[in-house]
Amino acid sequence: MSKSIFYHAGCPVCVSAEHDIVNLIGNDNVEIVNIGEIRGRINEAEKAGVESVPALLTPNGNVLHINFGASMADVKG
Amino acid sequence: MSKSIFYHAGCPVCVSAEHDIVNLIGNDNVEIVNIGEIRGRINEAEKAGVESVPALLTPNGNVLHINFGASMADVKG
Repeated sequence: MSKSIFYHAGCPVCVSAEHDIVNLIGNDNVEIVNIGEIRGRINEAEKAGVESVPALLTPNGNVLHINFGASMADVKG
Repeated sequence: MSKSIFYHAGCPVCVSAEHDIVNLIGNDNVEIVNIGEIRGRINEAEKAGVESVPALLTPNGNVLHINFGASMADVKG
């Protein structure tokens, strides 16, 4: 895995954080995944350790939870 | 302000996040400030909107609170 993955759910906090992350690490270095829409990837996010969104999964497997938009329970609910 | 500023307080969560941020955006693009040690900068961090550490202040003035190490009250206490 060479790219980071930014998981979000379309919330205002998520959109703001997405812009900041893309500005900081570059559009080519991050895959943006809206798990509110692509619900088939919720399980993958949870297995990676994502507890809330927005969150950035780094190439080395660490999860950075950024500010707070919604818990995974809220996303699934 | 062209660099981001990463505020931390030396906590384990802070150190882990610091490594991730430096890997992602590059050592030259971020100033690392330990406000547990450089206490004169606590006020500056709070004015920028930092509510907990670790946090990244972006060049455009947004604050990304990353995971959770300690509240500013804990840092000051």
